[in-house]
Amino acid sequence: MAGPGEFEFIRSKLAPLSAGAFGAADLTDDGAVLDLGPGERLAVTADTLVEGRHFPIGEDAGLAARKALRVNLSDLAAMGAKPFGYTLGVIWPRDGVQERADGFVAGLAQDQAVFGVRLFGGDTVVADAPWSIAVTAFGRLPAGSSLRRNRARAGDALIVTGTIGDAGLGLQLALGEYSPSNTADADQFRRRFQLPEPRIGSGLAVRGVAHAAIDISDGLLSEARHLAVESGLGFEIDLEQIPLSAPARRWLDLQPDRASAITQLASSGDDYELLLAVPSRKLAGLSHLLRQQEVPVTQVGQLTARDGDDPVIVTWKGRRIEAEHLGFTQF
Amino acid sequence: MAGPGEFEFIRSKLAPLSAGAFGAADLTDDGAVLDLGPGERLAVTADTLVEGRHFPIGEDAGLAARKALRVNLSDLAAMGAKPFGYTLGVIWPRDGVQERADGFVAGLAQDQAVFGVRLFGGDTVVADAPWSIAVTAFGRLPAGSSLRRNRARAGDALIVTGTIGDAGLGLQLALGEYSPSNTADADQFRRRFQLPEPRIGSGLAVRGVAHAAIDISDGLLSEARHLAVESGLGFEIDLEQIPLSAPARRWLDLQPDRASAITQLASSGDDYELLLAVPSRKLAGLSHLLRQQEVPVTQVGQLTARDGDDPVIVTWKGRRIEAEHLGFTQF
Repeated sequence: MAGPGEFEFIRSKLAPLSAGAFGAADLTDDGAVLDLGPGERLAVTADTLVEGRHFPIGEDAGLAARKALRVNLSDLAAMGAKPFGYTLGVIWPRDGVQERADGFVAGLAQDQAVFGVRLFGGDTVVADAPWSIAVTAFGRLPAGSSLRRNRARAGDALIVTGTIGDAGLGLQLALGEYSPSNTADADQFRRRFQLPEPRIGSGLAVRGVAHAAIDISDGLLSEARHLAVESGLGFEIDLEQIPLSAPARRWLDLQPDRASAITQLASSGDDYELLLAVPSRKLAGLSHLLRQQEVPVTQVGQLTARDGDDPVIVTWKGRRIEAEHLGFTQF
Repeated sequence: MAGPGEFEFIRSKLAPLSAGAFGAADLTDDGAVLDLGPGERLAVTADTLVEGRHFPIGEDAGLAARKALRVNLSDLAAMGAKPFGYTLGVIWPRDGVQERADGFVAGLAQDQAVFGVRLFGGDTVVADAPWSIAVTAFGRLPAGSSLRRNRARAGDALIVTGTIGDAGLGLQLALGEYSPSNTADADQFRRRFQLPEPRIGSGLAVRGVAHAAIDISDGLLSEARHLAVESGLGFEIDLEQIPLSAPARRWLDLQPDRASAITQLASSGDDYELLLAVPSRKLAGLSHLLRQQEVPVTQVGQLTARDGDDPVIVTWKGRRIEAEHLGFTQF
């Protein structure tokens, strides 16, 4: 599909990203041929980022590229898969190829080294459109070991990795919706919004331990709802237990309505932490496992047998948060 | 990445497309887990279609969906792979989801049945953007059997399947660049532009026979150039040998400058036929093989040892077509 100019762009800029990718033939073919080891399965996921929607207009091209790759790696992490490659479908705005191309490629090259992945092919198009980056990412995992969303059981603990809410505050900063009093804190919020850290090692570590897993892309409460609904369960979450970074805690302490502010952090997107459903008897082992990776884990609640009228209970200091404040009205 | 509205859209509209897809878990997970048989390899390709660029603004949504899928299946055909699945990344214009959604899904369902493929996951986004459809398609093939672009040898015959140029005339019609005198002919041109026929059976049949293969998405001459360059060769093509449909021949007969008109047909895109490099001793067998599938095959030229100054010779009735009319100036 690539026109002559695009073809040269692919050859010159993107071809080095496929170096060493088995079967990718340095992107001279339109496609690639991949291999799996005996007993291995291929995990596949696809996510698209659009400028002005998932990252701010004028975002550094390298950061945008890395975020597009990383949100897909986060999906693979939630499946318990080890990433090894990806394909790209990039739509460039008509007047915006040159200024973005080098940074885009450099950002991908940097993250390829960090995560051990390679480009396996793709397509670039120039159009009257906002910049968009569609990634399909590939990982390997042993047969029968994949983490799923819909295998949680009533009584499982709801566990999150890392901390929640920084990225949502980073988005607010990017939108100019608040001015931070603390520059270093603001930098952390911004960085976590721009460049998520997919929890690949954690996903690998909890295979066979967690009953279910999901990555937190659309807010902790929303993802807890997905995990519960798809497992046929309800859930309880205590917002006081939600792990916050020191900067997020400082931000929270300045808010007039703390209940509303913590609900906001638990509803804002782009954390890219993992939310896990873990049977109680395995909690201690799992915490030990993930802390060895220097990944903090925190229990924020539990899965409950689904009760028709009241499947979601979210509390803060013993007070119930009303459903209309949770960011979803239907269960 | 899907917001609540998009999430419901995926569940309700797209989930049925993943029914029976091993590991796709009815799209309740963000990703899918795929399996390969022993000795099998996975072929992967990615192509993106943008409204107003690859298909006309206002195109029937089902036809656009099917074209997006089919151009990817055509890439797999050129690799000699048997398609079995795909992922989607769709960007919907803000006010254009409802009017397109049902047709889009129905079109995909129709072609899933035709080609035996299933949806393995994906992502939909609503943005201030033209409608775009990014597909990554998956096929299987035995280890070591994939067709490549860069394995042609000097002396190989250049073979095309089917006929060339109809789709290019269909694009001209869509752009209002000419008014046909013959309605039935116009319908055929339009149909071939809207709905390519990926040559999957032909790709499977010529594995181990053709030295190299490429699908003709950007025009016969341009693809011959790719195949030759990547194999380190030159080529000769006789435009008189290019297979034309009866409607295209009628169109050609009406053109004042036939040499220019046939060059145009050989340079226009969207044919999605296969261009094969075949050793002479295997020509008869290959023709027999493909005619059994009722696919016409035609020799249009040959690969040549690359000669620094003159790697491309394109002729019509013994007359040389000058390089500046071939749609590419560099070799």
